[in-house]
Amino acid sequence: MADSSEPEATAPSRRALIGWGGAGLALGAVAVGGAVAVTRADEDMDPAGASAGAAVDFHGTHQAGIATPVQDRLHFAAFDVTTDDRAAFVAMLRDWTEAARRMTAGHAVGEGAYGGLAEAPPDDTGEALGLKPSRLTLTIGFGPSLFERFGLAGKRPDALIDLPKFAGDNLDRNRSGGDLCIQACSDDPQVAVHAIRNLARIGFGKVVIRWSQLGFGKTSSTTPDAQTPRNLMGFKDGTRNIAGTETARLRKFVWVDEKDGPAWMEGGSYLVARRIRMHIETWDRTSLQEQEDIFGRDKGEGAPVGKAKERDEPFLKAMLPDAHVRLAHPDSNHGATLLRRGYSFTDGTDGLGRLDAGLFFLAYQRDVRKGFVQVQRNLATDALNEYIQHVGSAVFAVPPGVRDKDDWWGSTLFSEEA
Amino acid sequence: MADSSEPEATAPSRRALIGWGGAGLALGAVAVGGAVAVTRADEDMDPAGASAGAAVDFHGTHQAGIATPVQDRLHFAAFDVTTDDRAAFVAMLRDWTEAARRMTAGHAVGEGAYGGLAEAPPDDTGEALGLKPSRLTLTIGFGPSLFERFGLAGKRPDALIDLPKFAGDNLDRNRSGGDLCIQACSDDPQVAVHAIRNLARIGFGKVVIRWSQLGFGKTSSTTPDAQTPRNLMGFKDGTRNIAGTETARLRKFVWVDEKDGPAWMEGGSYLVARRIRMHIETWDRTSLQEQEDIFGRDKGEGAPVGKAKERDEPFLKAMLPDAHVRLAHPDSNHGATLLRRGYSFTDGTDGLGRLDAGLFFLAYQRDVRKGFVQVQRNLATDALNEYIQHVGSAVFAVPPGVRDKDDWWGSTLFSEEA
Ligand code: HEM
Ligand code: HEM
Repeated sequence: MADSSEPEATAPSRRALIGWGGAGLALGAVAVGGAVAVTRADEDMDPAGASAGAAVDFHGTHQAGIATPVQDRLHFAAFDVTTDDRAAFVAMLRDWTEAARRMTAGHAVGEGAYGGLAEAPPDDTGEALGLKPSRLTLTIGFGPSLFERFGLAGKRPDALIDLPKFAGDNLDRNRSGGDLCIQACSDDPQVAVHAIRNLARIGFGKVVIRWSQLGFGKTSSTTPDAQTPRNLMGFKDGTRNIAGTETARLRKFVWVDEKDGPAWMEGGSYLVARRIRMHIETWDRTSLQEQEDIFGRDKGEGAPVGKAKERDEPFLKAMLPDAHVRLAHPDSNHGATLLRRGYSFTDGTDGLGRLDAGLFFLAYQRDVRKGFVQVQRNLATDALNEYIQHVGSAVFAVPPGVRDKDDWWGSTLFSEEA
Repeated sequence: MADSSEPEATAPSRRALIGWGGAGLALGAVAVGGAVAVTRADEDMDPAGASAGAAVDFHGTHQAGIATPVQDRLHFAAFDVTTDDRAAFVAMLRDWTEAARRMTAGHAVGEGAYGGLAEAPPDDTGEALGLKPSRLTLTIGFGPSLFERFGLAGKRPDALIDLPKFAGDNLDRNRSGGDLCIQACSDDPQVAVHAIRNLARIGFGKVVIRWSQLGFGKTSSTTPDAQTPRNLMGFKDGTRNIAGTETARLRKFVWVDEKDGPAWMEGGSYLVARRIRMHIETWDRTSLQEQEDIFGRDKGEGAPVGKAKERDEPFLKAMLPDAHVRLAHPDSNHGATLLRRGYSFTDGTDGLGRLDAGLFFLAYQRDVRKGFVQVQRNLATDALNEYIQHVGSAVFAVPPGVRDKDDWWGSTLFSEEA
């Protein structure tokens, strides 16, 4: 079984594989894993590279999509549960797992995408047929409200708190919360959109999409040697992120371990999602100096104030007291460190001629209280706040990985043994 | 001067070029054009291919972005004019042209993206620095309402009609119309979003974005040998489209010629944009047979009813009378033929748990009356209508290409001589 922080790669086309079994292929890929992981780092530098069509192994100790090198595009959906039938819900989780296993390996959801019964709806909606797996990862999370159902109350992790209200929050209920989430990341947006849609379809009658978000470009990278992507403020983002290969830091800051509890979360993590609108037009009229002061880094190279290179250690005291990097840095937060995995979004205009654009912030951590809550509280005085507003918010417990082809999403939570 | 239907390619990185002049490079690329045009067709088959970072020449008889092989992503914006000062508006068109020339060649908008005066806002917003040109094309169009301004009333083309109301229309004013439009197509969405944003910024005080649309995946291809993309209904789309290389058909159906008039539109075209929402969830519960009957083609291969292969000639009488392809085919429309260049969109959910997704339909034609209006009227009885709804609409006169580095967008319309 492969650890998903070292993803395996194969590049079958969905067309070629139609009708094959999914799991066999995904497991078969393990054999070539080592060499391919190296290719991945390059790929992140050049997402248009020839190997961008590869598959990431769905199975592992941890879910893929966290330490996995960040793919170019995102479709994220939060779902609400609409059934009280625990068995039906668990059956859906098993069906979702099988579909996710197939789709991440580059297959259609079922055998009958186009060759099935003419009288029945096709098993797969079809728009991804012929497309490569494109490093698709599907990551599931359970929201606090899920634990009010199905007799799960006693299983809610202490670390899965309801987020407090933060200074400046202007949250839209319709873009917040959710009993469940699926994060679909891929280098091809059609592959990510297809995956969410087919899971929604399988979940019909049991779950309904509460809100969803398309992310057109990754911001934070988790591959430090790659070219750092830029966010919509034009700054390199993710420079001092946790890299997917830093096993020790992942263990320290991202993965839940046995001491943390509850047992069903071991190997899992916690996800905070924040839709952060940027006041793009105001930002674009701000001087270069002011922009750089706000972050505490220069815009071209991304170097911290007073330093020459992007990767140079930030010297926090050289920055203004309200600089974003100064306030967000672990040294200002009792060591708190997040794995950031956000995406830029643009959702048309707001009726006032302004782009509805910004950062869909995604951060993984071992404990929400010591991670996001600590840092976000410290950002109350952030100079950046004049140019941004948090308009959506959600938090999820992300269970451990699906171990093998007999395992399923949520098995540790829903199995009677656990 | 190169005809933009045979785009030229080079692949500089925005980083490498910062501070260089834009026009020199764009013109320099002409020399290598022939060989590269061949590469383009392949590229369309494999958009993740190594040459996907190339530049498309901005200059030509026709604007790029029409006959140009369809790029993977779209950002489309409609603008309203907010000034009565004709000279200021023309100056903006010149500034836009210069910015478009630079951005399509892979440069930042100005020389002072990061090296400029610290006290001034940067010339370029910066998020595309380091990214390749990614086949960016920028195409401008003038809406009917523009001709009510600036003394242009006498110059409005007869072919630029206000679209009539069609059966089933449910148009949202806030997603319709516009004095101007810019279609930005690129293989990298960040490049397309960056381009629109920087044009909006340059236009500050003269124009304001009325609405905008992100298209995450191309539907219609204009390269017949490439793998045909699939729309969100899972069907291959663009099979019987006009190819960018079919010079005779382009002349017949797409490019305005001297006999058509007005003179300022010669070499131009007309664009109809329709935001078409799909009732995805209903569609996904429809049987394969019914889906195939509705289009008159099979879902897997895309072959017309009774035929074996996608490219086989459709035999219309074998299709149901209300099949989409039967009703849209030139033989049912006095020969009317459109160049389709639409994109799939997903804009979150609609508050009822349904994806707000569909087709952002873009079609170019020589005369809107004989093109879109003819076909759309004929689609009044289309079986597809049960699953779709037109929710946005706009029409634009797309002027001829910018001929060389001294020419500018709209010169034929705004020059006193014209
Ligand atoms: C639109 C909103 C935001 C923007 C544009 C933004 C941008 C940036 C940029 C450009 C950097 C410097 C490069 C890097 O090390 O990644 C940075 C660093 C960082 N940001 Fe943000 N950020 C935003 C919101 C947030 C939020 C909400 C949090 C967490 C609550 C956060 C946490 C961090 C952390 C932990 C660092 C690294 C600090 C260090 O270790 O030096 N950011 N951000
Ligand atoms: C969501 C809405 C639509 C969908 C999903 C759709 C889908 C399709 C598909 C799958 C084909 C067959 C493959 C091909 O030749 O491209 C097709 C053909 C075509 N469609 Fe549509 N279409 C839509 C709306 C429209 C509209 C609004 C028009 C124009 C008013 C249009 C005009 C055409 C034309 C001209 C053809 C080619 C017919 C032929 O020459 O055989 N379509 N469409």
